[in-house]
This record gives sequence, structure tokens and C-alpha cells, in this order.
Amino acid sequence: MPELPEVESVRRSLDPVIGGLDLIRVRIGRRDVVRDSRGRRRGAIDPTNLGVGSRVTQVDRRGKQLVIRFENGSATVVRLGMSGRLEIPLGQGSIPPHRHVIWTFGGTNSEPVRVWFVDPRRFGGVHLAQTPEDLTNRLLAGLGPEAPHVRPKEIADAFGRTQRATKIVLLDQRVIAGIGNIYADEALHQAGIHPARPAADLDGSELRRLCGAIRKIMDSAIKAGGSTLRDHRLPDGSPGGYRDQHRVYGREGASCPSCETTLEGMRLGGRSTTYCPQCQRP
Amino acid sequence: MPELPEVESVRRSLDPVIGGLDLIRVRIGRRDVVRDSRGRRRGAIDPTNLGVGSRVTQVDRRGKQLVIRFENGSATVVRLGMSGRLEIPLGQGSIPPHRHVIWTFGGTNSEPVRVWFVDPRRFGGVHLAQTPEDLTNRLLAGLGPEAPHVRPKEIADAFGRTQRATKIVLLDQRVIAGIGNIYADEALHQAGIHPARPAADLDGSELRRLCGAIRKIMDSAIKAGGSTLRDHRLPDGSPGGYRDQHRVYGREGASCPSCETTLEGMRLGGRSTTYCPQCQRP
Repeated sequence: MPELPEVESVRRSLDPVIGGLDLIRVRIGRRDVVRDSRGRRRGAIDPTNLGVGSRVTQVDRRGKQLVIRFENGSATVVRLGMSGRLEIPLGQGSIPPHRHVIWTFGGTNSEPVRVWFVDPRRFGGVHLAQTPEDLTNRLLAGLGPEAPHVRPKEIADAFGRTQRATKIVLLDQRVIAGIGNIYADEALHQAGIHPARPAADLDGSELRRLCGAIRKIMDSAIKAGGSTLRDHRLPDGSPGGYRDQHRVYGREGASCPSCETTLEGMRLGGRSTTYCPQCQRP
Repeated sequence: MPELPEVESVRRSLDPVIGGLDLIRVRIGRRDVVRDSRGRRRGAIDPTNLGVGSRVTQVDRRGKQLVIRFENGSATVVRLGMSGRLEIPLGQGSIPPHRHVIWTFGGTNSEPVRVWFVDPRRFGGVHLAQTPEDLTNRLLAGLGPEAPHVRPKEIADAFGRTQRATKIVLLDQRVIAGIGNIYADEALHQAGIHPARPAADLDGSELRRLCGAIRKIMDSAIKAGGSTLRDHRLPDGSPGGYRDQHRVYGREGASCPSCETTLEGMRLGGRSTTYCPQCQRP
């Protein structure tokens, strides 16, 4: 599942392509992937609230959500979910399955640019905000601070109030926005904190180490273009990207890069979790 | 199957994206889609003859073939075949199946640009020319004149020598480059020539009408961005593109837009063929 660094990588490649272009047309292949700002599937989908006829001012990101902002004040939020992705098809060909939303942007000097929202498993979705208030007060409401900049004082209250496992709290987008399973495991290992430790038990120094680890890992992962996880491995080619830098995630049974102890796995809140029993003591 | 106008539409959207960029990396998912300039699957595939390290000078087209030309004199020819297409994925996500070739081009001002060759049925392929001579004398050898510019004197000899059905001769890339099933049917209808007429039976005036029809249809189809044929029809959206302008192709049983006679179908050389029995007399 794409986490903040992966979505940031999408944002950085999409923004220069569609920023400043007019949205000419949107075609909805499956209406049930499109929702209004209240999350309703039956909301009115008309050309205006899809942004048709308006210019893209910029492509933003908040947590794991991509925000396409239009000049008329509306916005489209894209959630990639588990298997969602965006692609630009070249030329006019037949449209393969699972292209649930197709945007066509007007280029001034070149061919029109089409962008496909592809999501075979349909865990992702496209959410429409008609006004800046819809966006701020509904779609992006309640999100915690952005993971790459998180500071201990911003999360101390939320951590102090709960006995939930620290790993589970890290996945809560209301506490910190942008962290998923990969970067939670990596940050806890780097901070030397056991994933099952009750959040309220962390002391000030541990919170500082945790925030520092999150900021550092997010920064490195964004620089690497995110973690490329392949369902389909290519026979000749390295995995590339931040995946090479994973120290614990997906490495259960391998040895800890810090102390060579065998990494262990557990499940927390239904999520597979890998940690070093030596570096991350309960 | 993409014909000349569809491939031209790919060329026009690809050229401004990768022209002038350096090819940083090529990853081959399936080696059997890549061939050398002699068509051999076992040809040496090394970074140099893939164009790695060289700059893309331009993206050309010859007939239905896309030609990516590199500064070092090498070239990559992409044949889209039946189901092949090119896509630009945005950001770093997992790579879905059927991405047989992945090029990564180096952008100066933006993120690297990746281009996927996708071909679930693998009728298409990627052919490598190490030198301009390989390209001219092997990969692009023997092709007839480009369909959008074809003149009667260029095809009169080839037509005069064969009793094959005119439709079959139109599909022969050595006679005219770029025509497939759609545009052959359309051109024959517009010229008022029965698809099964032996090519040698056409007189000078018919050859002129046929070439004129081909040039006009190619021109309109290129302007429309080609014919978008959808395997997957979107529920709310018009088919778009040149498909709206098809007068006979795929319309067996419907009425002729010229004379309202019911269009008939036949098979010629294994290809489905639609024609008007009134406008196109045997």
C-alpha cells in the first residue's frame, strides 16, 4: 500500500504534467469509486464538481492523499488505497479493464494528456470537493501532522492517552498523517522501540527518538522515490528505490542489520510486524 | 490492432515526453518480446544496444512501427501488434503484470520518466537496431510508401501484378505501409471498390480514387487521434475519436451512410470485411 513517500513520488511526477492544464473531460468507468466530500457514493457527479472546464492550479498531497486543486476552488482527492495507481497512456488505444476514472487535460503545445486511475481491487477511490471548505473541513479533516515534519509536542497528548500498541498508534492517520506498515516498522526499529509497547508508556526521550526516526526515514524514502514493492518481479533488475534500505520490514527471519539478531514477526491489529528482539526490547 | 493513425497518435504523445532525454535504464521483464534487427530472439541484449547511456533524438514512425532514435545511431523499434500499448506510470508503485519492457529516461527538471511496454497477448515486440544501417536495411526494409501520402504511380505495378483481392493487397505492408483492417474497409468504401476485386482489374481511375480515399481517410483519422476501439466500454461516455467516423468498419447489418443499403460482411484472407453491395459493386 502506498504510504506518504510513494504518494509524494506520484505527486512529483504528476504536478509538472498536469499543472496549468485545463481539465477537458472526465470519464467515469465505475461510479462506485467516486464519492462526494461526505464520502457518499450517491453524490451528484456532474462535470462541474469533477472540475471539468477548470484549470489545475497544482497537485498537492496531504498524508497519503493526493489533492488535485482547480482554479474554481474545487478539488479532487485521489486515494490510492491498496492497489491503486495513476498512469498516462500514450496515444489512443483500447482502454484495458480497471481504468475507473479517465481525466483528459488540455495541452497547449502538445497532444491532450490523459490520466488513468487504475485500481483492480478497488480499495482506493476518488473524492470530490466542490469548495475549499469541503476539502478542509471534510476530506482532509482530522489528519495529524505530516510525518516528515512531526515533532514530539504534536503527538505527546495522543500518545499519553492510549494503551494501544505504539505501532497501532503510528498507523492512526489522526495522530500522524502518512505512515503505513512499512515505515512504522522501520521507524520503530530505528528508534529502538518495541512495536507492542503501550503508547502511553513511552517517555519523552523515546518520543523524541521516535519522531527523529520518522522524520529521517520519511526524508530518505522521499529522496529514493518511495519503496517500490513489486507484485510482479522482473527477472533481471534490482528492486531499486527505498526498498533496498528497509532494515526490518519484510525481513522476518533475516538478521538485524544493527546487531545480527534474527528478526522476529508478530501481528498487531491484524498487520504483520517485524522487529528486532534485541534492539527493540519490550 | 493499431494502424498508422493510432501509432502516429502514440508518436505524437511520446515524442515531446522523451525527446531530448537520456535513457538511463531498461529493464526487460520478458526477454522473448525483445529481438535484434534480424528478428532473432536470442540476439545479445546489452545496455548499449538497448540505447542505455544515449540521448533520444526523436520518436519517429514508419508504417505501423514506432522508431525511438538515439544519438549514438542506434534505434529501438516498437511494434504494438494486436494488444500492445505504451504507458507512463506516475510515481513508484508496484509493477503490474505484462510490463514486458520498462524504459527509464532521465529528466533534467523533473522526476525520471518511465515508459512501460504493456502487451498481455504478446503479439507486439521491441526490436533493436545497433546502427542506422540495421534500421534501414533490416527492420524497416521492404515497406511500401506511407499511406497518408500514397500516389497511384507508386502502387500501380504491385496492383497490376496480382490477382489477389484488393483488400488483401491493401493490407500488404510492402505495397503500402500503415493500413490495417479498419482503414482498408473505409478506403474501399469511399473509393466505391468491392473488397474482393482482383487488384490487377482496377483501372487508372479506380487506382486514383483509391489513393485519394486512403490519403483523405488517413488525414482525418490522424487528426482525430486515431480510432479508439475499446475492449472495455465505459458506461457513460461516447466512443470518441475517429471511431465515430467509421462508415463501414464494424457496421455489418447497419445501413450504408451513402445509399442506405444494408452493409454486408465477408471474410477475405481470414479478415472480417464489411462493404456496401450497392456502392461497391463486384
